[in-house]
Amino acid sequence: MKRIYMDHAATTSMDVEVVKAMEPYFTLKYGNPNSIHSFGQEAREAVEEARGKIAYLICANPAEIIFTAGGTEADNYAIKGIAWANQKKGNHIITSKIEHHAVLHSCQFLEKQGFKVTYLPVDKYGLIDLEDVKKAITDKTILVTIMHANNEIGTIEPIKEIGKVVKDAGVYFHIDSVQTTGHIPIDVNDLGVDMLSMSGHKFYGPNGVGVLYLRKETKIINLIDGGAQEKNRRSGTENVAGIVGLGKAAELAEKRLAEGTEDRVVKLRDKLIKGITDKIENVRLNGHPTNRLPGNANLCFEFIEGESMLLSLDMEGVAASSGSACTSGSLKASHVLLAIGLPPEIAHGSLRLTLGKDNTEEEIDYVIDILPGIIEKLRALSPFKRNWEGLK
Amino acid sequence: MKRIYMDHAATTSMDVEVVKAMEPYFTLKYGNPNSIHSFGQEAREAVEEARGKIAYLICANPAEIIFTAGGTEADNYAIKGIAWANQKKGNHIITSKIEHHAVLHSCQFLEKQGFKVTYLPVDKYGLIDLEDVKKAITDKTILVTIMHANNEIGTIEPIKEIGKVVKDAGVYFHIDSVQTTGHIPIDVNDLGVDMLSMSGHKFYGPNGVGVLYLRKETKIINLIDGGAQEKNRRSGTENVAGIVGLGKAAELAEKRLAEGTEDRVVKLRDKLIKGITDKIENVRLNGHPTNRLPGNANLCFEFIEGESMLLSLDMEGVAASSGSACTSGSLKASHVLLAIGLPPEIAHGSLRLTLGKDNTEEEIDYVIDILPGIIEKLRALSPFKRNWEGLK
Repeated sequence: MKRIYMDHAATTSMDVEVVKAMEPYFTLKYGNPNSIHSFGQEAREAVEEARGKIAYLICANPAEIIFTAGGTEADNYAIKGIAWANQKKGNHIITSKIEHHAVLHSCQFLEKQGFKVTYLPVDKYGLIDLEDVKKAITDKTILVTIMHANNEIGTIEPIKEIGKVVKDAGVYFHIDSVQTTGHIPIDVNDLGVDMLSMSGHKFYGPNGVGVLYLRKETKIINLIDGGAQEKNRRSGTENVAGIVGLGKAAELAEKRLAEGTEDRVVKLRDKLIKGITDKIENVRLNGHPTNRLPGNANLCFEFIEGESMLLSLDMEGVAASSGSACTSGSLKASHVLLAIGLPPEIAHGSLRLTLGKDNTEEEIDYVIDILPGIIEKLRALSPFKRNWEGLK
Repeated sequence: MKRIYMDHAATTSMDVEVVKAMEPYFTLKYGNPNSIHSFGQEAREAVEEARGKIAYLICANPAEIIFTAGGTEADNYAIKGIAWANQKKGNHIITSKIEHHAVLHSCQFLEKQGFKVTYLPVDKYGLIDLEDVKKAITDKTILVTIMHANNEIGTIEPIKEIGKVVKDAGVYFHIDSVQTTGHIPIDVNDLGVDMLSMSGHKFYGPNGVGVLYLRKETKIINLIDGGAQEKNRRSGTENVAGIVGLGKAAELAEKRLAEGTEDRVVKLRDKLIKGITDKIENVRLNGHPTNRLPGNANLCFEFIEGESMLLSLDMEGVAASSGSACTSGSLKASHVLLAIGLPPEIAHGSLRLTLGKDNTEEEIDYVIDILPGIIEKLRALSPFKRNWEGLK
């Protein structure tokens, strides 16, 4: 059976060119970049070359790129580090209700340390209201942290507009761009952000490596202390091969953006959404209809539980995801779907199909072809159906 | 020119078998282990298989293995996490003066948050006195953190004996075993430790991946919050390929320990030390003469600055390290060499040669052959020499 991967928001396959770029750093050029001998120096050069490529992708200065172990560490570092370093100025942080757990749980950690957090609401598309940001800022606010685009429903937030409001207030602004980096153009100056988190494995780079972009003169305290690597911003021997791979992924992403690869993904996504909503009844698209991530299709099917859809699709060779928190194996409905106003019963029936550069039109046709049968079968079995009909 | 690598304490080349084990997880089995589809499940199986191998290497339960981005993160997590979680019980931490900066700087971070830290002295070999540990423990002590073996001078600490004292006092015990894991046998129960940090790239595994061994029921607060991976102990998408590589490295290390590879390294090390001290005057071995890491030779050459030795050796194709903090480019003498009682002038003249499984007898002969000439040349040029003769 052919396997079709439509879970690119969870992780992507490394680009073959990324693997090739990394290989020399496994067993040949294996020095520690902090060593002054030639093994060390060739590793150092590779790390700095990668730093340049990543800076270029987001229009930053290479000195503002700090390598981390991934997007989650970058989010933790930005939020906790700003809070610790600026608590004399204030103890108030602003975020939204639909952030990734790396942000939400970092905020909750800080609440236990005495910080106050405002969780902004979103509209039915998942958009944050600029006026809500303005109203939430007080003279105790030290940080606003908002995701660039939502990982579940794909909605892209008005970051540039929020950036202006936050900058006018003299507050630090962090964005989680784990879902957008490499997929839509990013200019940290145009967006007006002081910090940005990215993750290699979300745009065909390696797992276990990410970046915190940290604007010069941002006052922050380290999350990870030690040997003073990354100009004493993040300690730990540099993951040289991973960093080289991330640099190559950034270079390739830049090229794809120029070539319009993501526009092709948008077309496939729209075809997929149209095909599904045309052929299946009682289905709704979650997230903004147009202002959304190129590859993201998130749909709710009434009367059906998300996990059963995933299992049925998997048996047909299709890898997809549910909006609900499958990580923890809990049965709680997605905090994002609840925040956009869906009742828990509907939120449980969500399906997230996230496309990537290698998905084909034939794969889209295949999913449009098999999904109605799966939904029909599951609805026939659904214990919810009868209750639901009463509720409608 | 043949290049000879004698800086294995800084980093090692990945074993070819480690790279082979990782490869399928780059572009074929690339799923996110938290996904319920088949891509995810094959990644999950690989992660759990690696966890088992690592647990086996240190005689732990797989459920007690938490994957991190490396030894530094593991140290930070253990120290800060225990401090935050147990501050109602007490605010006192005990460590030593010769710890790695990942430990020392984590302690300094906590001092700024109101914790008290005792930095134990060491003797001329770098050994901690058991009586000092006993005396330092108070009813406010929540953590003792001591390195298994020192990364600069190679001395192995009496961990088992310290473990008994710490356990009797009802205090948590963490060891940094970044230099020992895979090189000497480790049994976490025999050593009596509650936590242990390890790093993949120090024993022929990948960079950017490590482990915190965390004994069941240890009360700790997360360093990195988010998607609740690692049973909500350490968030962030698992570095699947890196974890698989670390598992393979553990398996290979277990095999090498059984085959006596490290005994061979000890013989090479002793030959190197004898060769150098026989042929060169005014040289001293740092660290314990016998109770030291298999591959570690750390020597001080009077009248010479460490960095010039490294550069001269590098020109002859030999990669080595100095005891001084080359990371930061500072000219401060090593805190470890100062702690064992060396005057700063002597501490600046240290050379660390750390051997690995692939070093050969011929390489040892080569270094013994060229080093006397290098030292002679540098001493002839040394501005310190005249002053020193007056000081002797």
